[in-house]
Amino acid sequence: MNSISSILLLLLTVFFTSSIEARVHHLKWDVKYEYKSPDCFSKLSITINGLSPGPTITATRGDTVVVEVFNGLLTENTAIHWHGIRQLGTPWSDGTEGVTQCPIQPGETFVYRFVVDREGTYMYHAHYGMQRSAGLHGMIRVLVPEGTREPFTYDGERTLVINDWWHKSTFEQATGLASSKFTWIGEPQSLLINGRGRYNCSMAGPMDVCNTTSPECSPASFVLVPGKTYRLRIASVASLSAFNLELEGHNLTIVEADGHYVRPVVVKNLNVYSGETYSVIIKADQDPSRNYWVGLNVVSRKPGTQTGTAILNYYPNHPLARPPTAPPAGPMWNDVEYRFNQSRSIVSHPEYVEPPPRTSDRLIILLNTQNKIDGYTKWAVNNVSFTLPLTPYLVAIKQGLRHVFSQKPAPETYDLKTYDIHNVSHNPNATTSNSIYRMDFGSTVDVVLQNANTLNPNNSETHPWHLHGHDFWVMGYGMGKFDPEVDPKSYNLVDPIQKNTVAVHPYGWTALRFVANNPGVWAFHCHVEAHFFMGMGVVFEEGVEKLGKLPTSIMGCGESKHR
Amino acid sequence: MNSISSILLLLLTVFFTSSIEARVHHLKWDVKYEYKSPDCFSKLSITINGLSPGPTITATRGDTVVVEVFNGLLTENTAIHWHGIRQLGTPWSDGTEGVTQCPIQPGETFVYRFVVDREGTYMYHAHYGMQRSAGLHGMIRVLVPEGTREPFTYDGERTLVINDWWHKSTFEQATGLASSKFTWIGEPQSLLINGRGRYNCSMAGPMDVCNTTSPECSPASFVLVPGKTYRLRIASVASLSAFNLELEGHNLTIVEADGHYVRPVVVKNLNVYSGETYSVIIKADQDPSRNYWVGLNVVSRKPGTQTGTAILNYYPNHPLARPPTAPPAGPMWNDVEYRFNQSRSIVSHPEYVEPPPRTSDRLIILLNTQNKIDGYTKWAVNNVSFTLPLTPYLVAIKQGLRHVFSQKPAPETYDLKTYDIHNVSHNPNATTSNSIYRMDFGSTVDVVLQNANTLNPNNSETHPWHLHGHDFWVMGYGMGKFDPEVDPKSYNLVDPIQKNTVAVHPYGWTALRFVANNPGVWAFHCHVEAHFFMGMGVVFEEGVEKLGKLPTSIMGCGESKHR
Repeated sequence: MNSISSILLLLLTVFFTSSIEARVHHLKWDVKYEYKSPDCFSKLSITINGLSPGPTITATRGDTVVVEVFNGLLTENTAIHWHGIRQLGTPWSDGTEGVTQCPIQPGETFVYRFVVDREGTYMYHAHYGMQRSAGLHGMIRVLVPEGTREPFTYDGERTLVINDWWHKSTFEQATGLASSKFTWIGEPQSLLINGRGRYNCSMAGPMDVCNTTSPECSPASFVLVPGKTYRLRIASVASLSAFNLELEGHNLTIVEADGHYVRPVVVKNLNVYSGETYSVIIKADQDPSRNYWVGLNVVSRKPGTQTGTAILNYYPNHPLARPPTAPPAGPMWNDVEYRFNQSRSIVSHPEYVEPPPRTSDRLIILLNTQNKIDGYTKWAVNNVSFTLPLTPYLVAIKQGLRHVFSQKPAPETYDLKTYDIHNVSHNPNATTSNSIYRMDFGSTVDVVLQNANTLNPNNSETHPWHLHGHDFWVMGYGMGKFDPEVDPKSYNLVDPIQKNTVAVHPYGWTALRFVANNPGVWAFHCHVEAHFFMGMGVVFEEGVEKLGKLPTSIMGCGESKHR
Repeated sequence: MNSISSILLLLLTVFFTSSIEARVHHLKWDVKYEYKSPDCFSKLSITINGLSPGPTITATRGDTVVVEVFNGLLTENTAIHWHGIRQLGTPWSDGTEGVTQCPIQPGETFVYRFVVDREGTYMYHAHYGMQRSAGLHGMIRVLVPEGTREPFTYDGERTLVINDWWHKSTFEQATGLASSKFTWIGEPQSLLINGRGRYNCSMAGPMDVCNTTSPECSPASFVLVPGKTYRLRIASVASLSAFNLELEGHNLTIVEADGHYVRPVVVKNLNVYSGETYSVIIKADQDPSRNYWVGLNVVSRKPGTQTGTAILNYYPNHPLARPPTAPPAGPMWNDVEYRFNQSRSIVSHPEYVEPPPRTSDRLIILLNTQNKIDGYTKWAVNNVSFTLPLTPYLVAIKQGLRHVFSQKPAPETYDLKTYDIHNVSHNPNATTSNSIYRMDFGSTVDVVLQNANTLNPNNSETHPWHLHGHDFWVMGYGMGKFDPEVDPKSYNLVDPIQKNTVAVHPYGWTALRFVANNPGVWAFHCHVEAHFFMGMGVVFEEGVEKLGKLPTSIMGCGESKHR
C-alpha cells in the first residue's frame, strides 16, 4: 500500500470511527504563573489549571479534542503545540507561533480543535519563546477503541513525563543566549519525573525559598502489584537533556515509539531524547519486600545534575519507602555507540508495518552546525540560522503575502565534498534567514540530518529533530559523513519505524523519508529549546492552496492584523 | 481667562511655535532584556537601547517627538506612556495598554508621535503589566524656546531619576499579588539614583552574581562648580516608595512641579511621590574642599532599605570622593504632618497663575480602600476594583463596541455618612469592574480622593494619583473625612498649582479640579505599580466622538482584531 492510500484509509477510518463512536472532549485551560517547588526550590512556573506538568489528555482514537486556552499570563503571549498529532486537515491547530498562528495575547482565549487519529503516546507544550521550559507541557494518551487489540498486553498503566529544571527563569536563559557576550545558564539544577525532583536546599541563597519537606517535591511513586505487568508511557519534554531512564532490577520491553508499535526490544535502560515518547512493558517480578528506584540520568552531555529519582512501589510497601540501594547511574554519558545502537534497534512491529515508498522525489541534506554570526552564537542548518517571521507562514502563504518572508529557497545541501564535519569550522558565510522549503504536494521527500563538530574542538552534540504535521520513516543512521551515493543502499525499506522525533547522534547522520501530503506549513527543528531558539530549525510547506478559508483566530500579528 | 480659552491659546501657541521653529525629533528605541547590575547585583532589566533608565528625551516646547519603539522582548508585549504629556489631539499616543492601545507584540514596531506643548520635566515609562518596575522608564525634558525667560535662573542643570529596585522579577511580584494566598515581595533591595545604587553583596546567594566593583553600580556623581547655581530636575519612577530627597548641607528651592512653575519654596529636603517631577534650585555655597551626599530615603512606609546615595561633587574634588559624613537620614518616615504641609506649600508661581474655574459641574468622590474580593486582596475605589478590558476603551467607544466593557456608570461617591475611614472595613459589597466615568465635553469636574484605613489596623497608605491627558488644579488637602458641605469653602481659587500627579496622604483627602476638554479616554490611577495592578484606578472619557479615524496601529487585540 502506498502512503497516499494509507492516508486515505486513515481518513476513512477516522470518518467511520467518528460516525460510530467518536467523542468530543472539551477542555478549558487556564494558563498562568504560579510559584511551584517541583524540586523543593520555590520558583515561578507556567501552569495549566494549577498544574505543571499540565493535565494529561486522555482520548480514544478518532475522538476530537477541543482545548480552550485562556492566556492568564500578565504580559506574555503564548501558543500550545500538540506534539505528535498530525493535524490532518487542521493545520491552524498545530500551535506553532510564527508558523501556524499568531501568539495568544494575555486575556485572550484561543480554541484548538483537532482529531486524535491514531492511538499512542504524545505530548503537548508551549511553542513560543522558551515557555515549554517554564513548565507549560504535558502528556497526551490516545487509547485504542474498546475491543481493539494491541500487540502487547498489560495489567495496568503508568505515565512518566520527564524533564530538566533550572532555577533561573527562561527569560534569563534566553537573554544569555541572545547576547553578543553569549552566556550559558549551565546544567539543570534537577531532573524531574512527573514534575518532582530533589534539590539540595543547602545550596540555596538567603532570599530563596527551599523546603525539602514540601509535599510538592516528594518523589513520584508508581505502585505495582507483584507479579503484574505494566505499560509505562514515557514522554520527554526536556529543555536540553538527553535522558537515560532505568528501572532498577527491571528490564524494559520497548513496544511503542512516537505512536507507532515497535518490534519488541528488551533493554536494561532506555535512552529518551527531548520530544520523544515511548511505551515500555515491565513486569513486577522482583523481590516484593522492598521498593526500587526509577533513575533518570543525563547522557550525551557531561552530567552536572544529580540522578532524577522516583519510586517503583511494590504493593503493599509504603509508597515512599526508600529502596535500600543506590539509584541507577545509567550508562556512561559519552557512550555514543550504545545510544546509536539502541536507536538502530527500534523498528516497526511486524504486524503493523507501513512500508515507505521505495524511492524519493527529493533529497534534502541538512548540515547541523554551531556558528558565530555577526558576533552572536547561533545554530544553523546548511549555514542558515532560522528566524521566524512576524506574520505566520500559514497566513502569509495562503494570502500571498510574499514580502513577509524571504522567497529565496532554503538550501538543499551543504558542501559535501570539502566540509570537514570532524573539526571546528568557522563558516564565514553563515547567515540568518526565514526562508523555507516548499514541497510538491504528494511528493516523497528524503531528509538527511548531518551532524558536525560544534564551535568547541572535539565536540558534537545530540540533536533530537521533531517534524510537525507528519510522521517520517527512519531510513537509517550512520556515523561520519553521509554519502548520497552509498548510504541510501543500506536504508531500511522493510520495516522502518515511523516517528515524529529522532536523534542525530554526535558526528553521525540520520536519514528520514516522508510524504508531503498534509496541506499546511510545518516546522522541523531541533527539540532542544535553546537550539531552536538559536536558529536550529527549518520550515516545510505543502499544499496550502488546497486549504479552505483560514480561521481568523490565528491572525492578529504582523501583516495578518486588520485583514 | 477660562480654561477653554487657555487651551485654545495653548493650541495657537503650539501652532505658531510649530510654524516658526518647531523641530521633529525622530527616536528609534530597541526595547529588550539585558543583565544589569544597577546596585551591583546582576538582574534582568528591560532596557531601551541598552539603557535603564532609558535615554533622556530633550526637546523644546512645541517640538514634535516621534518614537519608533521596537519590541525586542522575547514573549512579552509592551506599551510606553509619556507621563505628563497631555497628548492634545493625539490620545492614541498616550501609550496606556487597554485604554488607548493594544499592546505592542514582540517583533513589532509601534510609532508614538506627539507634541510637547509645554516646557517642564516629565517622564516616560511602560504602561503594561509591571514593566515600569522592570526598568522601562526615563525622563523627558522640555526646554523653553531660546530667549524665553523662566522665573528663575541657573548656571547648569542636572537630572535625577529616582527609583526603588527589587532583585526578584516583576513576574514574581505580580504572581504574589494575584494569588489568593497574597504574597508580598517585601521592601526594595535598594534605592537607585539615575540607575545606580548599592546592595550588600554579602547577602547574595551562591547562584547570584553580585560585584561591588562593577562600574555599573558606582554612584551617580553630580559635578558642581563652587559658587554656581544649578537646576536639578527630579522624576520619581518608583514602583512603590514615597521618597524624601535631601542634599546634604544644601537647601532646595522648589521652582517647578509636574511642568508648572511654583512660587519658590525653600526646603531642607523634598518629598517626591511616584509619578511626580520637580525642579529645584541649589547653590554650590558650601565648603568646596569636599563632596556632599545626595540622600534618598523612603517615607510613608517603614523603611526596610538602606538610604540611596549619590555624590554632589564640588569641582575639582574627585567625583567619587566619599563625603566624610553620614548620608542624610531624611525626616521621620511616619511624619505625615511634615509631608502634608510640604504638599500644601506648593502653589502656582504668581506670574504664571492660570486660575481654575470658580465652580465645577460635577463632584466625584473616590474612596481609596484595600479590600478582599472573592478571597483576593485588591485595591478599590468606591468599592470597585478596576480591571482593564481586552479591547482598548478608545477603540471600543469610538467604534461603538458597547459589549466590551461594563456600560454601568462607575460610582460617583461612597457612603459618606456612615463609612468609618479610620478603621478596618470589610466592604462585603466590593466588586471588580471595568466601568468608567464619562464626562460632558468641556465640563469642569471636581474629584476628591478620600483615603481610609487599609485591611491592617491603624494603617493608611500614601497614594500618588496620576491623571492622563490633563493637568488638574490641586484645590485643597485635608486630614480626615472630606465634607462636601464645608471643605470646598477652603479651596484655593487663587493660585492652586497644576499637576498631573498628587498624593493623598494617610487618612486624608485631596481635592482636584480639571476641565474635560481633551477628546480621548484617560486613565486616572494610583501610581504605585502594585496598587494599580490590584485595581486602584478609574478611567475618564470625554469627547471621543470629536476624534477622527483612529490609527489602526493601536488595534489588534480583543474586538479590535480584524476590523
